[in-house]
Amino acid sequence: MSAGIPLNQNVINMEYAVRGPLYHKAAELRSKGRNIIPCNIGNPQALGQTPISFYRQALSLLEYPPHIKRERTLKGQAPALKGMDNQEWISDYVLDFSEDFLTKMETGMGAYTDSKGPRFIREAVSRFIDKRDGVTPDRGVPSIPDHIFLTDGASEGIKNIMELLISDGNDGIMIPIPTYPLYSATIARLGGAQVNYYPDEDSGWTLNREILEESFSRAKKDNVRVKAIVVINPANPTGAILDRKSIKEIIEFSGEKGLVIFADEVYQDNLYGSEFMSFAKALGDNRDIPLFSFHSASKGFYGECGHRGGYFEVRNPPGSPGGDNGFIDILFKQASVNLCSNTIGQALIYLLSSPPPEGSEPYDQFNREKQGILADLYEKAVMIKDSFKEMKAVECFGRVGAMYLFPRINHLPGGKTDFDYCMSLLEETGLTTVNGSGFGQRAGTHHLRIAFLPPKDTLEDVLPRWIEFHNNYIRD
Amino acid sequence: MSAGIPLNQNVINMEYAVRGPLYHKAAELRSKGRNIIPCNIGNPQALGQTPISFYRQALSLLEYPPHIKRERTLKGQAPALKGMDNQEWISDYVLDFSEDFLTKMETGMGAYTDSKGPRFIREAVSRFIDKRDGVTPDRGVPSIPDHIFLTDGASEGIKNIMELLISDGNDGIMIPIPTYPLYSATIARLGGAQVNYYPDEDSGWTLNREILEESFSRAKKDNVRVKAIVVINPANPTGAILDRKSIKEIIEFSGEKGLVIFADEVYQDNLYGSEFMSFAKALGDNRDIPLFSFHSASKGFYGECGHRGGYFEVRNPPGSPGGDNGFIDILFKQASVNLCSNTIGQALIYLLSSPPPEGSEPYDQFNREKQGILADLYEKAVMIKDSFKEMKAVECFGRVGAMYLFPRINHLPGGKTDFDYCMSLLEETGLTTVNGSGFGQRAGTHHLRIAFLPPKDTLEDVLPRWIEFHNNYIRD
Repeated sequence: MSAGIPLNQNVINMEYAVRGPLYHKAAELRSKGRNIIPCNIGNPQALGQTPISFYRQALSLLEYPPHIKRERTLKGQAPALKGMDNQEWISDYVLDFSEDFLTKMETGMGAYTDSKGPRFIREAVSRFIDKRDGVTPDRGVPSIPDHIFLTDGASEGIKNIMELLISDGNDGIMIPIPTYPLYSATIARLGGAQVNYYPDEDSGWTLNREILEESFSRAKKDNVRVKAIVVINPANPTGAILDRKSIKEIIEFSGEKGLVIFADEVYQDNLYGSEFMSFAKALGDNRDIPLFSFHSASKGFYGECGHRGGYFEVRNPPGSPGGDNGFIDILFKQASVNLCSNTIGQALIYLLSSPPPEGSEPYDQFNREKQGILADLYEKAVMIKDSFKEMKAVECFGRVGAMYLFPRINHLPGGKTDFDYCMSLLEETGLTTVNGSGFGQRAGTHHLRIAFLPPKDTLEDVLPRWIEFHNNYIRD
Repeated sequence: MSAGIPLNQNVINMEYAVRGPLYHKAAELRSKGRNIIPCNIGNPQALGQTPISFYRQALSLLEYPPHIKRERTLKGQAPALKGMDNQEWISDYVLDFSEDFLTKMETGMGAYTDSKGPRFIREAVSRFIDKRDGVTPDRGVPSIPDHIFLTDGASEGIKNIMELLISDGNDGIMIPIPTYPLYSATIARLGGAQVNYYPDEDSGWTLNREILEESFSRAKKDNVRVKAIVVINPANPTGAILDRKSIKEIIEFSGEKGLVIFADEVYQDNLYGSEFMSFAKALGDNRDIPLFSFHSASKGFYGECGHRGGYFEVRNPPGSPGGDNGFIDILFKQASVNLCSNTIGQALIYLLSSPPPEGSEPYDQFNREKQGILADLYEKAVMIKDSFKEMKAVECFGRVGAMYLFPRINHLPGGKTDFDYCMSLLEETGLTTVNGSGFGQRAGTHHLRIAFLPPKDTLEDVLPRWIEFHNNYIRD
């Protein structure tokens, strides 16, 4: 048949390793009954993480509002009911919260919203950002609700803004290597130029001026006009947390070179004791550098990946020094072609911007769940890191952040790649990881990315088998 | 500041009238307290349409599964409860349905799914398509679950497939004029060539060979390589339903010219008595013509726009005569960059593919709600059509379908455009419509699109005021 229809070569060339051959092999083994441990993506609830009760109780009521009133009636008769635990009632706080949400939402969950998302949700996000960054009437630069866009996951916004910046193959975007493949794939799809920069692995994936300049001047030599720099902090796939010095370096560099900053901060809650420094805060009262900051409901302690809630915030929109809204209007038009992001994802962004306050009924449970998940994640990261010590020629750098470890395998048997390693690891142990080459890496190095998400007893079972596999494999 | 960053001209050029100046003016008037009747978009629940109970009860339970068991416990004690109507309990059918869904969903609503969406949902969609098209073991061509992709609304799939077909300004897509602006906007964004064809308004927006050939040869003269043809049936913005002859004509034409067909069938439930003929059914056992059919949870009688559920089905994927999966693999890779569509939208697609069977507990209510909404929509369309008869120089063609009427205004005062008309109509009556030029129209004609969604008493109030406005306006 129409074998003759030529397709867009940019899309054909685009690579996306996270759902590439290893993903398909794992699916195949699983369909054959093999026990597969999917550490290849950051998908906590697929590995048994329980949703935050507060969020889900509210979403459940938003989908079926008649149950708000019914719950109040039922609770009034609770003493007459047998076999019911007191815990099983929805707290008045959540009932009021949901009712209030629906009042503000006006048209309910089933209607398209404004293309940017409802204003009251963007206002809540704005308050969340300002609180996180310690903005007070006397200190810091407040975020602007009209410069916040709700999106289906963080990916949608990233893609739209990149599309706006890339006109042809001479438009370049600096991305860290290794990178989250959304960035390399999107640049490839748009036919832009991918300009690699290489955080310094051995010093914990930090950055300095030399690294950035090297990348920029390499691009210039190739006649590439660099327009933006992408930073992922905490990083994916390395899991490393950027230090303040690196952040300041990027901002100074971007100011000098006239670059737009993409700050992918979807792991801002996955810090395990380290302090989070947002680019918005670090930017301070700079009025020149355009900054796009991304966040989502998919990661953090909540891990609501499937709901595809996300947002981005714009500071210093390009081409609008005197309050001209031209750039924001174009973003609005782009968002409008998609009509709006999904309302349940929007509600989740509202929920994570509005945690129950201290003293409210759901506070204790919420906090217990939150802290429990974060503590558990950290312990699992440590378990895996510890097992690297028993693997020959493995090193792992950087502070623990995000949901990933990205160990370097310093020795592989002749001719083998890290892809071969990950495929054998999958086949022998069921543990699914992603090869470092899927994210890009310095030539001659080998890595893999593992999400530290499986239950501890699963790790207790698989880690010794991995160690054994590894020490056999690299001996070959 | 960075006024110097040049942006992608394709995105800047892109137009999207549905959320253009009229949309913004309506928002402005509304914020000033004016009563606005938003007939500018097909957003039923924004105009008071009640969600289908069956769908929302299930979604509510999927978000908070502990309530499945709790509901069973509570129902067991129903006699002890005062002030509860029997109707307020969730039926066992819905409880079992939700439990079964979650068993099949395995990782719950909070996890990323397969990039195409879970297989069991795609299987349900496949059964739905085959049932709709009367496919039996002896008759018709069954759909293939692996050729079905779940998406965030129908828009996502349309955009991805267009992106795959358009490489440069010589790649053309035939679209009907007037058109749903997603198509013109997407072609503009991708830098492709928009090739207009003009259904014949006066004969009810039908098509014939001449119309299609004229469009094709015009493109050829401009050195445009036409790759695909878009058909929207029932149509947006005209609301017209294509007759079988037009459908056959498009298929024959596409076969001869080697075109891919985009069949946008999101209004397939909005026929009000006419019978729906899908392109998949009309294609029959043709193995040559690539067909992409789109559907969503946003329209129909359900109108769950905000949940952004959608799917597309591929028949005869390009370049894969011998079962080669190349094209499907590329679509999978595209979907993977977005990870997956939102799970609640996916669940809605499953729900609308799996209506409660006759005799089941929710059947009567479901059917009552469904038929009630459809009957109401039709009555409202007729009310509006009738009022056109009292407006001078207004004609409206085609059978009533979708959610729109697209009357032609045969006379406007000197220098005035249909945009001017719609703006004045909005300012004087609060009724928000979209000017015909926002969708494209034959040069020298004037139209507007109105969604027949407001409650009847609202129409009873506004229609006389519109008639008065109209007859004054065109006299000027």
